[in-house]
Amino acid sequence: MNFKKEINQFKIKIDNDITTVYENGPKNINEPINYILSGGKRIRPILTYLSYASVNKNMDISPNLINVCLSIELLHNFTLIHDDIMDSDDLRHGKKTIHKKWNDSIAILSGDAMLSIALVNLDKIDVDNKQNIVSKFHDALVKVCEGQALDIMYQDKNNISVEEYINMVDKKTGYMIGLSAELGALLANCDIDISDNLKRYGQLLGRGFQIQDDLLEIVSNSQKMGKSLDSDFILNKKTYLYLKAIEKNENKVNEIRSIASEDNKLGFKLLKDFMYQENIISDAEFYVKNLLNEANEILAQININPNKLLDYSKMILERRN
Amino acid sequence: MNFKKEINQFKIKIDNDITTVYENGPKNINEPINYILSGGKRIRPILTYLSYASVNKNMDISPNLINVCLSIELLHNFTLIHDDIMDSDDLRHGKKTIHKKWNDSIAILSGDAMLSIALVNLDKIDVDNKQNIVSKFHDALVKVCEGQALDIMYQDKNNISVEEYINMVDKKTGYMIGLSAELGALLANCDIDISDNLKRYGQLLGRGFQIQDDLLEIVSNSQKMGKSLDSDFILNKKTYLYLKAIEKNENKVNEIRSIASEDNKLGFKLLKDFMYQENIISDAEFYVKNLLNEANEILAQININPNKLLDYSKMILERRN
Repeated sequence: MNFKKEINQFKIKIDNDITTVYENGPKNINEPINYILSGGKRIRPILTYLSYASVNKNMDISPNLINVCLSIELLHNFTLIHDDIMDSDDLRHGKKTIHKKWNDSIAILSGDAMLSIALVNLDKIDVDNKQNIVSKFHDALVKVCEGQALDIMYQDKNNISVEEYINMVDKKTGYMIGLSAELGALLANCDIDISDNLKRYGQLLGRGFQIQDDLLEIVSNSQKMGKSLDSDFILNKKTYLYLKAIEKNENKVNEIRSIASEDNKLGFKLLKDFMYQENIISDAEFYVKNLLNEANEILAQININPNKLLDYSKMILERRN
Repeated sequence: MNFKKEINQFKIKIDNDITTVYENGPKNINEPINYILSGGKRIRPILTYLSYASVNKNMDISPNLINVCLSIELLHNFTLIHDDIMDSDDLRHGKKTIHKKWNDSIAILSGDAMLSIALVNLDKIDVDNKQNIVSKFHDALVKVCEGQALDIMYQDKNNISVEEYINMVDKKTGYMIGLSAELGALLANCDIDISDNLKRYGQLLGRGFQIQDDLLEIVSNSQKMGKSLDSDFILNKKTYLYLKAIEKNENKVNEIRSIASEDNKLGFKLLKDFMYQENIISDAEFYVKNLLNEANEILAQININPNKLLDYSKMILERRN
């Protein structure tokens, strides 16, 4: 089976099974939970699957694997719901966000319940190293919260360095993608050295994923990304490209920001033009390419079958929407 | 040592140790987390301790016990932070709530981080039945969210029955207090029959605790309760006494509500007078008394040393503030 077909088949399995994780419970949280769960690219559970497949010769899609994948996707959706409130984002996967379609209280609570369901679902797995898997899941949760805390903190702070930004991204985005790869490997009961390396691979993939996202927010358009484009700019949210632009010419960026406060569309166009002129776009593309290489080199150093993961890193980091 | 002194000594231990659970991490969540953790009566961890002591002859305050107690208190504080946002409450333990002192985003995130820290802290315990303890913690989390979902749902619904209200309270409040008693017993490695009974005992204690809270909101005053008194009334939040008042005379309650919408203070006074006249206050007191007896009867049926728990139920359910 070709790679795209294989991961699509797995995605369909996740899309299907995820509709069964929370069928009962109070309607006011059941509806928003199932509403947001009906969308998404399932990037993280697919990575768990591919990581599992890379170390497990007799590939079987066991209930344990599916449950870990579902819990990871639920954990991810928990962060989406709460982050969307904090960022006042109106759109997610091309649909209204929960706090917008319902209200803040329902969104806070649906997020909390989503996380709870992720944890209860994870308890269903029956493997010898279950305790280790559960505790890694808990650890990742703290890191994700801390990443989001830094993200919020940086909105009100000027002079954030690119290093600080990368550190924030590694926590907010990289850590959970690293967890996705690590848990797939741990489920296949591989050596700790291999699962640690797959974690590192996932973390680099996650970092690259976010920088590619930052890039696409500038070069792509709102319809493709499925979320409102200018919210980051309005919020003074730091991105890799924005910080690079400040490094190049802070006065120019401030000038564009003051124009944007009057005319958001014009401000966005000026920023984009500036980023092209100053090679910020091409530098970011180069950085993502380097991350892709670095991540793939890790795969080459460990005793696994790396082919599907190599395809996956390429697919994630060269995506155009 | 007398009972009050003993539990106060344990409270001081918790008050002290809880300041060490989150010493690092981003300042914008570290500060609110430690701010809210500095207050509270520690009702749940004290129950865990007393439950542990009731089955464990060689009483030792082990790190395992302390960590379970801390995680339970963190779990409780997570719910407080998020519930205060949803209920728009301004005061908690006599201090500004987090969303009021900081903002909603910080409160959402501090709550999320608080829960994460509870989970990571729980992973520190080293006991044979750890997996069971962790999974019971996860299960309780779902129940607490569902209880809060019902609470929110009932705010917009008329004709909530007293049974529906009690079911909501059992999930929102009772389940976590049941968990507190159960985990203390499980830590002492007792028979499942005993831990199940202590769980049931805790759940009844929790239900009584909430009804006593409902009572005190009417008969006590704002300073004593340490939170703003009329918010429940304004929000149309159902309480045991409110629902009993509607059962007695719905027209009268609606009349009072419409007066309250003009003059909140007068409305509250009229409601209170009505509740005294119609014996709603004394009926609620009787109901709490019955719950106390029912909870204590459970203790009498199992092979434990019930004395401290008997003292505790009396203290909780006969409290005046």
